[in-house]
Order: sequence, then C-alpha cells, then structure tokens
Amino acid sequence: MMNKLSTQPPKGTADWWPEEYAIRKYIFDTWRSVCTRFGYQEYLTPLVESADIYRAKSGEDVGGKELTVFQDRGGRELAIRPEMTPSVTRMVAEKYESLAKPIRLFSIANFFRNEKPQRGRNREFWQLNFDIFGSDDLNADVETLQIAIEIMLAFGATKDQFQVRINDRDLINSMATDLLKIEQGKVSDAIRLLDRFGKIENDELTEELKNLGADPDDWDEFYSYLEKDEKAMQSYGGSVFKDNEGIERMEKIWKNLADLGYSDYFTFSPSMVRGFDYYDGMVFEVFDLSPDNNRSLFGGGRYNGLAGIFGSEPFPAVGCAPGDETTRLFLESWDLLANIDTSPEIGYLPILSKSLEGDAQKLAATLRKEGMNVVLGLEEQKLGKALEYADKQDYPNVVIFGEDERLAGKYKLKNMADGTEEDYPI
Amino acid sequence: MMNKLSTQPPKGTADWWPEEYAIRKYIFDTWRSVCTRFGYQEYLTPLVESADIYRAKSGEDVGGKELTVFQDRGGRELAIRPEMTPSVTRMVAEKYESLAKPIRLFSIANFFRNEKPQRGRNREFWQLNFDIFGSDDLNADVETLQIAIEIMLAFGATKDQFQVRINDRDLINSMATDLLKIEQGKVSDAIRLLDRFGKIENDELTEELKNLGADPDDWDEFYSYLEKDEKAMQSYGGSVFKDNEGIERMEKIWKNLADLGYSDYFTFSPSMVRGFDYYDGMVFEVFDLSPDNNRSLFGGGRYNGLAGIFGSEPFPAVGCAPGDETTRLFLESWDLLANIDTSPEIGYLPILSKSLEGDAQKLAATLRKEGMNVVLGLEEQKLGKALEYADKQDYPNVVIFGEDERLAGKYKLKNMADGTEEDYPI
Repeated sequence: MMNKLSTQPPKGTADWWPEEYAIRKYIFDTWRSVCTRFGYQEYLTPLVESADIYRAKSGEDVGGKELTVFQDRGGRELAIRPEMTPSVTRMVAEKYESLAKPIRLFSIANFFRNEKPQRGRNREFWQLNFDIFGSDDLNADVETLQIAIEIMLAFGATKDQFQVRINDRDLINSMATDLLKIEQGKVSDAIRLLDRFGKIENDELTEELKNLGADPDDWDEFYSYLEKDEKAMQSYGGSVFKDNEGIERMEKIWKNLADLGYSDYFTFSPSMVRGFDYYDGMVFEVFDLSPDNNRSLFGGGRYNGLAGIFGSEPFPAVGCAPGDETTRLFLESWDLLANIDTSPEIGYLPILSKSLEGDAQKLAATLRKEGMNVVLGLEEQKLGKALEYADKQDYPNVVIFGEDERLAGKYKLKNMADGTEEDYPI
Repeated sequence: MMNKLSTQPPKGTADWWPEEYAIRKYIFDTWRSVCTRFGYQEYLTPLVESADIYRAKSGEDVGGKELTVFQDRGGRELAIRPEMTPSVTRMVAEKYESLAKPIRLFSIANFFRNEKPQRGRNREFWQLNFDIFGSDDLNADVETLQIAIEIMLAFGATKDQFQVRINDRDLINSMATDLLKIEQGKVSDAIRLLDRFGKIENDELTEELKNLGADPDDWDEFYSYLEKDEKAMQSYGGSVFKDNEGIERMEKIWKNLADLGYSDYFTFSPSMVRGFDYYDGMVFEVFDLSPDNNRSLFGGGRYNGLAGIFGSEPFPAVGCAPGDETTRLFLESWDLLANIDTSPEIGYLPILSKSLEGDAQKLAATLRKEGMNVVLGLEEQKLGKALEYADKQDYPNVVIFGEDERLAGKYKLKNMADGTEEDYPI
C-alpha cells in the first residue's frame, strides 16, 4: 500500500490560491506596466542553465551551497536558475555583435534557491529583471534608478516609506584598500564585513576588521565616512577618494536624479554592498523605512565585466531585480494592498430546473460573447442553494434564469453585494 | 583561468527574445481570456514538489525516468514539476472539505521533463491547466471539452484544422478484457499498444496483441470497432459494451456537445488512450488535422481517483492541459500567427544635442504620463543615427525634439512605417 502523501507544499514554497494570485498578479502587472512605459521589451530565458554560469560569479551562496544542481540525460550539470543576471547576459552575449545597442530588456520569472527560508525569502520566488546592455553612459545608471523609484511610486509608496541607497564598487574597494589599508587578498572579506555596518555594533565591526588587518589612520574618520549622505559627501574635503572614478560617477548620478525631481527618494550609502561578485560600478538597494521592517527590498547595479565569463569581449550592462515576496510584505505593512480588488468578476448562472438546462447553456454562451465571465451551474439547483454557493465563492453577480424569465425572454442580474436585481432582455 | 562558457541555452530549452515572447504571450493571453470567460480563477503551485507525488500515478516516463530529482537542504527528495495535475490535486486536497464545490481553477506555468527533445516537445515547456473539482456531473466533462474547443476557435482555427477525439477509460478497459480477452495483469501493456492503432500496421498490432494473449472472437470485428466514430457507435448493435457505463457517458457527452453546436469539432475515437495512469473516465485529445503534422496537440480527462494518493477521500476531478510548443507549431503551420503584431509600441526620443538633455528627459516623463511608451536616448545622437537605431529596433515612432522644437514648445512624431511627421504641442 502507498503511504499517505502530504498535502503541504514543500518547505520554502507556497500555493497561491486565486485571492493570493490576484495580489501577485497586481505586483507583476505593475512591474510590467512601468518597464513597458520606459520602452523595455519582455523576454524569457530557460528555467535551467549550465550550473557553471552561476558558479562563475554569483557568489559563494547563490552560486554555491544554495545552487540546485542535477544532471540531464546527457550527463550535463544543470541548475535551476537562482537569479536572472547570468542567464540574460548569456542570451545577450550570443547575439551581441549583431544587435543595435543599447538593448533594453525585462522579464518576470520564477527562481529557486536551496536556502534557509526566512521572512521575505522563500526558496522559490519571482523576480522582475530589467537591464540595459551596451551603454556605459551614466544616463543608463540614472534610468535604472529612475525605474526603480517609479516602480515604488506606481505601488503608491511615499518618501516616508522607502529610500534608494546608492554606492559604487570603486568607492567600496578604495575604502578597503586606501582607507582601511586591507591587503588585496582580503578585500572581499572586508567588503562583506562593511555590509554589516549599522546591523552590528561599531566596536564589533572594528574588531573583525582588525582581524583582517585593517589599520586606518583614524577609525573615527572611517566611521564618520560610513555615515555620510550625498550632501555631506559633496563637501568631504581632503578625502582619499578625491580622484576616484566612483565619486565622480556618484556625483553625476546624484545631480541627474535631483534634476529629474527624485531628491526625496535617494541617498548615498557608503557602507552599502551588493552580495553578487559581478557588480563593478554603481550599486543600489531600495530600503523599506518602516522601523519594524528596516531591510533591503531589492537592488541592482552595473556589471560590465560579467559577459567575460562567456569568452566574449565584456559589454556594459546595468540592471535591477525586485522580488515578489519582499514587495508583497512592503505593500502589506504599509497598507498599500487595501484597494486591490481580489474578488473575481464573475456572474453565476445556476440551472434552476432540469428543463431549463439547454436554454441556460445557450444564455451562458450569449453572455460570454457579450463579455461577461459566466460560471454555469453543472447540476439542477434551487435558487437558495445557488445564492449560497455564489456567496461562498465570492462571485459578485448571479444570473437568475427561471421558467418565468425564459417565457419573458429575459434574465435577472442580482448584485450579491447590495441584493438589488435588474432585468435584462436576452 | 576560467574556461569559456557556452552562450547557448541548455538542450531542450530556448531563449525567447521579445519577438518570440510576443507570440508566447499571445498564446498565454488567449488561454487566460477563454478560461476567465468561463469563470475559472487563476492559481499557482510551487515549481518543485515532493518527488513521490509524481511517482505515484504519473506513469513510468513522466513520473519515472524523465523526473528531475534533487535533495533540498533537509534531505527531502524534490522534483521539478513535470505536469500540474498532481500538484493542483494536492493543493485542492489540502482544503477540499472547507471549500464550496464545484471549484474551477486554471494556471499557466512552466514544467520540466528530462526527456529526449523532439519537434513539439521541449524539456522545458509551458502549459495551461484548467480543471473542475468536486463535480461528477457529465456537464463538467462537457464544459471541459467545450473550453478545449473554444480555445482552438479563439486562435482562429477551423473544423478542417483540428478535431477533438473522445474516449472513455472504461471502454478501453472493456476492450482489453471483454473483447480481446486479455488477462488482468497485462491490461496496461495492451492499452499502451492500442494507442498505436493507426500509427503501425494492423498486422503488426495483431502480432503484438497476440503476444500479450489477445484472443478475440473476431479480429475483423475488433478492427472495425476501432474505426467507429460516434455515429457508427450509436448504431453498433450487439456490442459487448452495451451495458458499459463508459458508453452511456459517451453518448450523453456527444449529445450535449452536439446541442451546444460543436458537432463539427469532435469525434469518438475508440483507440485513443491518454498516457497518465490517473485517468479513470472520459479522456480526450485535440488533434491537428494537417497531413504533415497529424498529431495530438493536447488532451485531458477525468481523474476522480487521483486525490486518493494524499490519503483523503478521493474527489471528482476533470481537466485539460494545452502546451505552448504544440500550440505554437499548430498556429504556425496553419498560418494563424500572421496577424499577431510582435513589434513593440514604442516612441524613440533621441537626445539631439547635449544642451537638450534635461528638457528631453522632462519631455519623456510627460509623454510617459500621457500613456506613450518612450525609450529615451542615452547619449547625444545625430537624427540620422537615431532614425537608424529606431529602424533596427523596430520602434514604430520617433519623437523628434531639436532646438527648433524646444523653442516652439512642441515635438514632431515621425511614423517610421510611412515616414510621415506630425507636430504636437508639449
């Protein structure tokens, strides 16, 4: 005998019943509409890829212990995609030479990471990815940030609810090598530590950085630097970063975003790091400002070097990837889902007597042609039972079609919310 | 040094560039619109499931050698979903008792089977699944068939292009046990052979059935039965199937479909079998009638017993699952994709001189608010280059905004198809 199998979805995944699906669809539709408005075109890559494209530069978690690897029939090592960036880079690298540049693309797809599930991080998740390939112009960085902000605004979020924190990998590297005087081999470890600024005590951070050999001229100067925003940074005299390309890029990006009217929505964040190894220019994260949920919602940045893993000449790329689960939690915690209508636009047409079955089927066909979404009863049903069913299913309307209506060549439409009925000719 | 990684998608999978994505989206949108019109509500289940839910009843291919199995962090054996039916049955079984019945659900999702790719069968594929749970009424079977037909009609297909072939598992079983006198233990093997009727020579089929112990009273009668359609079947006197529940169901379904005006689109097909072990009543397949591509496009049927694998009381279920790749090939071969517009509705706004950059950015924002999808140039660009880029990208419009236009407070909209230009005030 077979053992009873569980009816629960696997750990770190979820079933989306229609009410939940309606919320996710609202999120996807909002993403799609903003990206389309900016002229990005939708694409899709395969669910699985050669495992090596993630091992190359996705970092030790996403490209390592969280990677779901299996063999296909031909013995190739494949992995379920844990993120989109290596896939879309592969796809673009395949045709890059023959394409008119720049190329603007977006996708909405599902991903899987074999990680420890926690609030806002499921094993399976959905992500929007939007990217510009083939332009090194800072206007591409600005457009990426602009779309990230416009997505938040499209959800109805305000400046008190979210903030875009911007940094540059050149600045982060300089901070490690020039300010902290960390030796080359330990820079990655130091950068990972810097990302914990604000999450752990400064004393603890100092201790851990010292273990890596950090020896700045002045620890206070280091910590005051980490707290600078873009205004403070612009007047930061005598800095080791004066001639750094990263600070020049940052200043242009801040100015351009301000000119576009987005001053309220962004800040410079010198300690902000993105976890993927492939980022090599501007990086950013969108933060939830709620004190209860002060966390990164999503992020993005430049990854000009990534295409190199496919042996082609690297090409410039910048992009961003919001996820469904963090977005959903954000919208819920700020009460931004209140106006989403998750009830189905459906009219229920019960078969009130067996003799009406044929005519009810024809009426259903007519109403559907006229644009109504019609659920037709399957078995003969008394009106009371029919109304009860429509109520339980949350159907907003019932099409009443009894013997009287048939003879009069009409039907009644009952509004389930207020109980009113109106006659319509067939 | 890293080896060069391939830019090709893995075997049996594909990259969908925007033009291809537009075709798939047209297919998905058509599926969604028909299901919504019949009052089905969209849901989604996880990408992965416990491997056992497929091993139970998905058959030796889909639930066996083609299954992609891996272990999660907790050592659970998971599989990428190769089909939706076990997943949605699991999801419904979890809440079945508390739900108002019947329940109508649909989903559009991606699947993976580690099989040998061939024309129309990729390893990764997308499928619509629509199902009714909780009704054993034949009207539910009829509605399933009706939606399958309406989907084909929504794609513009005609009666010369497709046909729905209907059968019943009880009839297939009777044919094996009562007509061919196959012993119980070999019925599954015999049914698999019957599915090859019309694909191999009758002599070869006879030989193979004899090897399984087939011993009908009359081989000619057996073969004449396999060729019957619903009209011939209705007048098939003296049949062994006279009191079979399957034939009663079939006759009611045929009559109801004919009353609904679908006579042109279906036929009885006594040799038609569906590969999944869980089907236990009406089964059907939609066939492409093209002589070059005479194959099953998709199918469905009743699977009242499947919920039993979750230990719950089995509940009635009937459904259908069209796939993206077979649909796409069908539409292409019958020239039904000709009218799909795959070019993006985009206006390209080049920055014609550096001094116009700020104003061009503001114009882009204004036009987007007014509902235009606008791609803004990233770098200064001469008009000739801009038109060339728009042409290569297949953008239908260019927004011309030079110094003259700025001074006049207007912009020109150039139609790339016919070259005409029109002025608009800003």
